[in-house]
Amino acid sequence: MTQTDAPLPQGSIVGILGGGQLGRMLALAASRLGLKSHIYCPDPDSPAFDVTPLKTVADYEDPAALAAFAAEVDVITYEFENVPARTAEFLADHKPLRPGANALAVAQDRLAEKAFLSINRLPVAHFAAITDLDRLEAEIEEIGTPAVLKTTRLGYDGKGQRIVDNMEDAALAWELLTPKPLVLEQFIPFEREISVIVARNAAGQVAAYDPAENVHRDHILHTSTVPAAITGKTAAKALEIATAIVEALNYVGVMGVEFFVRDNGKLLVNEIAPRVHNSGHWTEAVCITDQFEQHIRAVANWPLGDPARMANVVMENLIGDEIAAIPGQLDPTTRPHAYGKAESRAGRKMGHINRITVKKRKK
Amino acid sequence: MTQTDAPLPQGSIVGILGGGQLGRMLALAASRLGLKSHIYCPDPDSPAFDVTPLKTVADYEDPAALAAFAAEVDVITYEFENVPARTAEFLADHKPLRPGANALAVAQDRLAEKAFLSINRLPVAHFAAITDLDRLEAEIEEIGTPAVLKTTRLGYDGKGQRIVDNMEDAALAWELLTPKPLVLEQFIPFEREISVIVARNAAGQVAAYDPAENVHRDHILHTSTVPAAITGKTAAKALEIATAIVEALNYVGVMGVEFFVRDNGKLLVNEIAPRVHNSGHWTEAVCITDQFEQHIRAVANWPLGDPARMANVVMENLIGDEIAAIPGQLDPTTRPHAYGKAESRAGRKMGHINRITVKKRKK
Repeated sequence: MTQTDAPLPQGSIVGILGGGQLGRMLALAASRLGLKSHIYCPDPDSPAFDVTPLKTVADYEDPAALAAFAAEVDVITYEFENVPARTAEFLADHKPLRPGANALAVAQDRLAEKAFLSINRLPVAHFAAITDLDRLEAEIEEIGTPAVLKTTRLGYDGKGQRIVDNMEDAALAWELLTPKPLVLEQFIPFEREISVIVARNAAGQVAAYDPAENVHRDHILHTSTVPAAITGKTAAKALEIATAIVEALNYVGVMGVEFFVRDNGKLLVNEIAPRVHNSGHWTEAVCITDQFEQHIRAVANWPLGDPARMANVVMENLIGDEIAAIPGQLDPTTRPHAYGKAESRAGRKMGHINRITVKKRKK
Repeated sequence: MTQTDAPLPQGSIVGILGGGQLGRMLALAASRLGLKSHIYCPDPDSPAFDVTPLKTVADYEDPAALAAFAAEVDVITYEFENVPARTAEFLADHKPLRPGANALAVAQDRLAEKAFLSINRLPVAHFAAITDLDRLEAEIEEIGTPAVLKTTRLGYDGKGQRIVDNMEDAALAWELLTPKPLVLEQFIPFEREISVIVARNAAGQVAAYDPAENVHRDHILHTSTVPAAITGKTAAKALEIATAIVEALNYVGVMGVEFFVRDNGKLLVNEIAPRVHNSGHWTEAVCITDQFEQHIRAVANWPLGDPARMANVVMENLIGDEIAAIPGQLDPTTRPHAYGKAESRAGRKMGHINRITVKKRKK
């Protein structure tokens, strides 16, 4: 399938790497478009296996299983950015992999991500690659404290980073964080965090959702509120930056772009995720086209859908035992989504709810 | 499970008789609630088999298959009202069957349905049971012409009925329509057709959606428009009647109630369907809780969700080759739903679209 190819016809099979809630919600969206999903995941208890009969239970680096999977599907996508590079290459040799390997390469490596953004003149915090302790000390002199030292790979939900206030902190952080190299970033005092869910298809069509304002708790997303308490100018700028990112990457699919909003209203890109994003779960409740359908449309070479929003909304994650709120303790104006995970563990994302504000209308 | 039982916990399995688009959309909704679905259908190519790994391919009157199915599920529901009575009884002996056998009995038989409605003082056209030609002639004298002669069972999409303008028509219709007995109904000149989707759970909670205005083409639903062009008083009356019906039946689940609106604004109940209903497909696009989730909530003993509507909408069925409009010819404000049916046949419901009107809001 090239950029000029026709849309995947109904009945085609979308291969999805990863069997968690994002893969599950992608598969549900594919169903609504008349497409089938084949889930590939090493964990036999993956929640996405409950929403399609087509599955592969195998390691992500099992060439025979990957080849068989690729043979059965029409296009391949993923629910997580840490797809091994060799796996991505192997699959892309067999079937279209969307988003492509360049998006994975950038998003898997904090340093590559920062470099990509700054090369494209997109606003990021000052940063430096740290290969040894001497370099760390020199860069702390340059960037100042507080600063944040981070691993370049496999960090999520606050893992793999430490705040550095002085040289002693720096030495300890250098010891503790692994693997090397690391990246040092200026610590950004910010007023709020927002994110933009943006989609691009192979034809170059781009659609972005209204920015959401995100609140974290214990380093895990707690709520996303739409609209965000930002000016129209800031919102427009966030959409412009998100659009520039997907265009610079020649990206196909949905991407989550996280921003810090400084007290002067200026934006800095914090992180990009080459996939559907937790801070876009509100779209399923109030948008004409939700992020899951939008991602499937993009990877299936379909025209993008309308991201227009029908109502104001607050998405709240249900972490660990909070899932027990469904169904007994739900507010009646709440729309729940439970991920069907068999076991509730502390810190595990088990579901979410969307609190929707419906304006009274004339009959 | 009795009326006082607790809600079915997440991870429970909803058994669904019927593997068409309604069963498929019920299964998708169950997934969003963390429930699993087991589809039972004799047709191995049923579209609902694509959205869950749990399936039984067997005849509806196969006791061994039914028993095995019942053993694997926690509650049983259905997507079509023509479940054989013996099947319903058999299943209800093993697991809760919702809606119950009384709802099936009333909805499967036009005469039972009319009798139920008139006993409950709910507005229906004049009707009479017709057991022989003499009786037919006598009732035509009584009711007048035009009148409509219908089979009592298995009629849908305009099948199994003939308009009678005189005694010659009557004799021909009596010959052609089968099985006997038949039912003769007064022909109702109406201004428009509307329907109300109403839900009731075992705890007696009732939730009704705004009435939809329905237009048929070739006896198949073409569009449902919400809001309907009726007065607030007529809308309120329709909701009141729909509520009275589910309460009189001690009903559990979603029901579709079709009405004729006469030129004086008066309502007559045309038909009831003890299941999710084609004229409620608009709810998935613009309501906090759609009809599919509402049905699953009711049969799973959950609190009902909010039927509030976020936007105006027109649902349009895609019949036969009209499905080819997805994805190429979609209006951008349209939300599509393709049922994943392998073969497009004339008159076959292949999918639908929802055209949504989103009001411009301040940023």
